Amino acid sequence: MPRTDGARVVADLQRLAEFGRYETGVHRPTYSETDLASRHWLAEKFAEAGLDASIDGIGNVFGYTPSANRRLLLGSHSETQPKGGWLDGALGVIYALEVARAFRGDPGLAGLGIDCVAWADEEGHYGNMLGSRSFTGALSEDEIDSCRSRDGVALRDALKAAGFAGKQRVTAEPGRYLGYLEAHIEQGDTLDSGGLRIGVVEGIVGIWNFRVVLEGQQNHAGTTQMARRKDAGVAMVRLATAIHDRFAAIAGKRTVWTIGRMLLDPNAPSVVPGRAEMQVQFRDTDEAILARFAAALEELCAAADRAGPCRCSVEGMSRTEPRLMDPAFEAAIEAAAERHVPGLHARMPSGAGHDAQVISHKLRAGMMFIPSLKGISHHWSEDTKEEDIVLGAQVFADAAAAILKAG
Amino acid sequence: MPRTDGARVVADLQRLAEFGRYETGVHRPTYSETDLASRHWLAEKFAEAGLDASIDGIGNVFGYTPSANRRLLLGSHSETQPKGGWLDGALGVIYALEVARAFRGDPGLAGLGIDCVAWADEEGHYGNMLGSRSFTGALSEDEIDSCRSRDGVALRDALKAAGFAGKQRVTAEPGRYLGYLEAHIEQGDTLDSGGLRIGVVEGIVGIWNFRVVLEGQQNHAGTTQMARRKDAGVAMVRLATAIHDRFAAIAGKRTVWTIGRMLLDPNAPSVVPGRAEMQVQFRDTDEAILARFAAALEELCAAADRAGPCRCSVEGMSRTEPRLMDPAFEAAIEAAAERHVPGLHARMPSGAGHDAQVISHKLRAGMMFIPSLKGISHHWSEDTKEEDIVLGAQVFADAAAAILKAG
Repeated sequence: MPRTDGARVVADLQRLAEFGRYETGVHRPTYSETDLASRHWLAEKFAEAGLDASIDGIGNVFGYTPSANRRLLLGSHSETQPKGGWLDGALGVIYALEVARAFRGDPGLAGLGIDCVAWADEEGHYGNMLGSRSFTGALSEDEIDSCRSRDGVALRDALKAAGFAGKQRVTAEPGRYLGYLEAHIEQGDTLDSGGLRIGVVEGIVGIWNFRVVLEGQQNHAGTTQMARRKDAGVAMVRLATAIHDRFAAIAGKRTVWTIGRMLLDPNAPSVVPGRAEMQVQFRDTDEAILARFAAALEELCAAADRAGPCRCSVEGMSRTEPRLMDPAFEAAIEAAAERHVPGLHARMPSGAGHDAQVISHKLRAGMMFIPSLKGISHHWSEDTKEEDIVLGAQVFADAAAAILKAG
Repeated sequence: MPRTDGARVVADLQRLAEFGRYETGVHRPTYSETDLASRHWLAEKFAEAGLDASIDGIGNVFGYTPSANRRLLLGSHSETQPKGGWLDGALGVIYALEVARAFRGDPGLAGLGIDCVAWADEEGHYGNMLGSRSFTGALSEDEIDSCRSRDGVALRDALKAAGFAGKQRVTAEPGRYLGYLEAHIEQGDTLDSGGLRIGVVEGIVGIWNFRVVLEGQQNHAGTTQMARRKDAGVAMVRLATAIHDRFAAIAGKRTVWTIGRMLLDPNAPSVVPGRAEMQVQFRDTDEAILARFAAALEELCAAADRAGPCRCSVEGMSRTEPRLMDPAFEAAIEAAAERHVPGLHARMPSGAGHDAQVISHKLRAGMMFIPSLKGISHHWSEDTKEEDIVLGAQVFADAAAAILKAG
């Protein structure tokens, strides 16, 4: 079995966090100067580990094992959310590097290869999981033409400034890999609050987003009698309350739903709102539950529309389907966890999106979680106990070895 | 009885609407070039009617009857809301002018005087009812120093540019007036929808405004399980629904309440809202009802805070007290309406604020409404049937004459 060096993992994570340090976290948006510097540093680290390192035309950093009979691809993304955490995707990239190093020094693993990758822009600064989607062939040149950052910078200009323009984009070589493994912090508090140390990801939730619009009549808040009002704000809060009640009644054990965005128009204290809009989102790994939620939402909106006095319409905005992880990979991660921390691991869905869901369309894929303290993520205060970081690297390496040995 | 000239009233209103015409309405913010031109035009019209005309240091345009034994002050404001209606305050100013003209030509009304006024900035472009509050002595020099337009222009600079700086501000001369009368469009649809032609204003509503804040915990909408959320948006829609239900149960016949402004933070579809805020406003002429609403609101917020998981606080933001109109003035308006359109008038509160509520602190005050088509106001499409404009002028003149004759 490979032997990882926990101190080296922590030191590399700390070094990587120097690129864009913000408070105790990191501010490293995709294609920023600090992101580019960190990608070149990662390429150097891959090379030091004996891998053939390169950065492709979308900014993905690869480290290829020169020769092997069977290979796994390991990695995650290396940019961060604005003022984000130091672990997030970085953890999975450094774990991949460490597993490659552990394999290299172990004669018992001869012929078994680890390729490493640091995907670009999983966090969506310019687009939707650009790096992993480029690798699976899902990212077209047209889409690249159309992508812009929130600040309005064209992706093409960013790639050119980064020196990536004109470089080839690497896509998955058929037959090269047994599969893809990704490690990540949980970002929720299931592990931390339950005293658990390893999460075995069963699937990545599907995310369905809807826009609900209420249309009434804008009016003077003093001169318009209650009986004659068509107050879109009243309609929205009543409908939102009904949605929360209904969803709670039909939810699965792990379903989550959120009304995170609400807009009143004109949103002035002395004006009866003429229009209101809200975004309703729900997530589950079970497509039947997602469909049940969508049906309930549509039924409630239709009922609100029939009841009046405001019109109510609902439209789907975006929809990602749940992706199940490979059962054999789950079993390998679980067995490795059980060996190191018996009973202190759990199978769980990922409520957040990850590159693994993209890669799962091309390769067998597996994911492993380590705890997030208090479940905090996408914030600079995100953290994980050092003993969990160290343990996770070893469990991840063991799982990779078991998968490669089983072939 | 005085005889008004309906065609002249309509012609003057149409001429006044040329200052800042916008679509079929008017854009004439206080102290804008068009507003200043219209105030000088009004002063000329007052002078043509045989009145001593002047504009004071806040922009109020006065027209004084040279000699009289008993006097009434009649008027309204002449600036408009942005892209507002052509009648709104202008109607009451031109009615005042027409009543003065009608009195002048009528030997039966000798010794009875009408002073006319066009108040400045009732619409709040720079402050809170600046013109009428200046007249009652409620507007201090310090407040003038501190007022700015929504565009950041200092009131002092606007007055200087207008040529009003250094001019005296006219305040109510003790004993000069029997009282103040103001005509206005209803701005609601009580008259229009009821087929009524004259509204006798019993009082102007008090307006109480509150800010309600819900504080929860901002979190990832995918990784935070429902049981552990402190979603300020959920707390807000549940509380808002409870507020609407409770208010409906304890409302008076004419109470109106509005939650016109809502804010979620950070208001992003994939983030559990950590903070939410809403503004709750209610209006009635009955102070006991306003107090009952405030108590109910505070009780519901306290209950929401106790129930958790979000904290809930409520604070008063602003409060104007209801102002009752003079009963004898109401009776005079009602009697004049009954003579012209028997049964087609109604006593009613004003749900909007008016200069009359300010003046009522110094003088006996009365208000008369004419219908607004479909209740539309503060919009360029605001309008009233010409026959109602013509009728209103005569009823208003008759009421003024009756009040002055009764002494």
